[in-house]
Amino acid sequence: MSWVHDPAFAADQPFGPQTLPYGVVDDGSGPRVAVRVGDHALPLHTVADHLGDVAELVTGASLDPLLAATRTEWSELRSRLMDLVGASATPGNARLVPLTQVRTPLPFTVGDYVDFYCSRHHAENVGRIMRPDGEPLLPNWTHLPVGYHGRSGTVVVSGTDVVRPHGQRRGNPLPHFGPTGRLDVEAEVGFVCGGPVSRRVKTSDVADHIFGVVLVNDWSARDIQGWEYQPLGPFLGKSFATSVSAWVTPLDALAVARVAVPDPGHPRLPYLVEDSPWGLDLRLSVSWNGTVVARPQFADMAYSCAQQLAHMTVNGATVRPGDLFASGTVSGAERDQRGCFLELSWGGRDQITLADGVTRTFLEDGDTVVISASAPGEDGSVVGLAEVAGTVLPAAED
Amino acid sequence: MSWVHDPAFAADQPFGPQTLPYGVVDDGSGPRVAVRVGDHALPLHTVADHLGDVAELVTGASLDPLLAATRTEWSELRSRLMDLVGASATPGNARLVPLTQVRTPLPFTVGDYVDFYCSRHHAENVGRIMRPDGEPLLPNWTHLPVGYHGRSGTVVVSGTDVVRPHGQRRGNPLPHFGPTGRLDVEAEVGFVCGGPVSRRVKTSDVADHIFGVVLVNDWSARDIQGWEYQPLGPFLGKSFATSVSAWVTPLDALAVARVAVPDPGHPRLPYLVEDSPWGLDLRLSVSWNGTVVARPQFADMAYSCAQQLAHMTVNGATVRPGDLFASGTVSGAERDQRGCFLELSWGGRDQITLADGVTRTFLEDGDTVVISASAPGEDGSVVGLAEVAGTVLPAAED
Repeated sequence: MSWVHDPAFAADQPFGPQTLPYGVVDDGSGPRVAVRVGDHALPLHTVADHLGDVAELVTGASLDPLLAATRTEWSELRSRLMDLVGASATPGNARLVPLTQVRTPLPFTVGDYVDFYCSRHHAENVGRIMRPDGEPLLPNWTHLPVGYHGRSGTVVVSGTDVVRPHGQRRGNPLPHFGPTGRLDVEAEVGFVCGGPVSRRVKTSDVADHIFGVVLVNDWSARDIQGWEYQPLGPFLGKSFATSVSAWVTPLDALAVARVAVPDPGHPRLPYLVEDSPWGLDLRLSVSWNGTVVARPQFADMAYSCAQQLAHMTVNGATVRPGDLFASGTVSGAERDQRGCFLELSWGGRDQITLADGVTRTFLEDGDTVVISASAPGEDGSVVGLAEVAGTVLPAAED
Repeated sequence: MSWVHDPAFAADQPFGPQTLPYGVVDDGSGPRVAVRVGDHALPLHTVADHLGDVAELVTGASLDPLLAATRTEWSELRSRLMDLVGASATPGNARLVPLTQVRTPLPFTVGDYVDFYCSRHHAENVGRIMRPDGEPLLPNWTHLPVGYHGRSGTVVVSGTDVVRPHGQRRGNPLPHFGPTGRLDVEAEVGFVCGGPVSRRVKTSDVADHIFGVVLVNDWSARDIQGWEYQPLGPFLGKSFATSVSAWVTPLDALAVARVAVPDPGHPRLPYLVEDSPWGLDLRLSVSWNGTVVARPQFADMAYSCAQQLAHMTVNGATVRPGDLFASGTVSGAERDQRGCFLELSWGGRDQITLADGVTRTFLEDGDTVVISASAPGEDGSVVGLAEVAGTVLPAAED
């Protein structure tokens, strides 16, 4: 029997001892690195004496030193923490804090933020909606993970309110300007990079350079995006806010969830071939004002995190600790597996009915969206990704 | 007569007392903030006693604290430095170091990097080359400064060699992979942000949020870019390297160079209207292995830095100290005003002849490109932007 007395700290619960995600908590005395145990946080400076040499990586105010460490150190820390939380007696000065009593700031400094576009169903649906007269999938899509850089300065932590953005949208003869009328979400999975600064990371080396996994809500203003995005891609339609989980689930916790990505139907260039599969069997859930409106399956994604990282660095670009890349909207073949409201409402054509009978196409002020996910763990356990939640605030005054 | 004895430190020279750009130098004893005086650097810790309260902003190893200060402090520092370099007696322990004897590392931490696309001539030329069957200018272009996020982790300082990147390019039935065959430059002007973290910066407040100006070479692999860029914009065709000047010319040094941007021929949305002009009369020069191949005029640009910053933040995105945004390739109406080789060679069709009789379309290994620029200063003086130079190295082994 563990000294951690929390019914949520169990193998059949998402944040049991099989998960142990890292974050930063602040109970009013300042931010501290912590590990999540059920519905509690264990601030790691309270157990530093039990962590050996790796203690110095996790006794500060952010995950940055841990991200800058090595895979060997990540494994060492995780192993020590597993022993620690499994012990029967409270180790030394260990202190558990209920999550309800702490603030959870953004736990790391975001370097570069890249957003991919790796769900075939999403890309095809968006193609059909945005370019009805063209082929839904462009010729490059099955050969490379299409991606673009986003704004790292507006990555925010789960729970941060999102102010409805202003922007230009199509108009005739002049564009209109004002608050977006088509505010949307994108349910995505994000990968937090760590380890030594490197170039040309091979798919086989990805575990040295990905520390862990978060959920991402890539908030999107579809009318702003639709007007601005040609020819250089999305800009202000995305850069007002991107939300990430407060807790980073270590990649090691997802070992059992690894699956092969679907075959593209043609040979892959060698740098995109994997010697072991890096797709992940994550089951997402998108909740809109409490109603689950979609259950996307991450295993449907056409490219893995290993392929994304190999592609992102194959040109000599560096990957640095704190770099973040996200999968792109996770959408499946079925209507109730679509990870954004543009797809769920088919460009605003179809109403989405929530549990209270209210209908929606895009987000209204006051709406709250929560994305959560879990994966299979060892011995039938469940591994959770911490939710990413956000509420829409009205547009700022002009 | 100033105590600074350097013939390059004169009003008719680009780095005379009217310019005073900031950078970081390292003579082997570690990096130090410095101001450039002619062909010398004045490390500012050697004159800290003369700088009053603002000394603490510039006695470290990077410009980051200075960028995070306020416009009032920037003005105070510049005023004190103008007095200091104009004095007849050497102030205290002031020490001048020849630029040939120092290394100049990247002087600040790049936050987000945004690249705009604000030369009408460039956008039209690229449109004609890349989309010969369509309208050269897309409908949004005259209404907003088109831009996208680049990779801040691969922003490098002038003098850094650029390794020819690998990547995918169009092929049938499968894409090709290998070193780019169409390595190009883009001659641009970059704006280094500072001041308090802010959202929705008005065009009238831009001087509170732009610290200074650099030259930018946005190296581009046209074959990689051409295959990957639809629908989400350039990615690996750009993210292998972006070079910036080692010295940041303060915005205050360019007061005389301010000019109005051309009228778009239709009303502007109010947030893009300027109450005073923020275009800049900068004359660029692009030299390829010593031959000047283009002399673009920055005054031709369709959007000013104030309009770009107002646009970039109008959706609620923050601007932070260290954020960098670049103008996009500076190209004029004439052939010898084109700021990239894609345009100069018209997509590789036309040979460009260098002074030694050698011809080129795109860059070959060993080629060196230097971009420099100057602007009119007060009383007939010349204000320089420090050059951005880079040499192409062969592609890495597979």
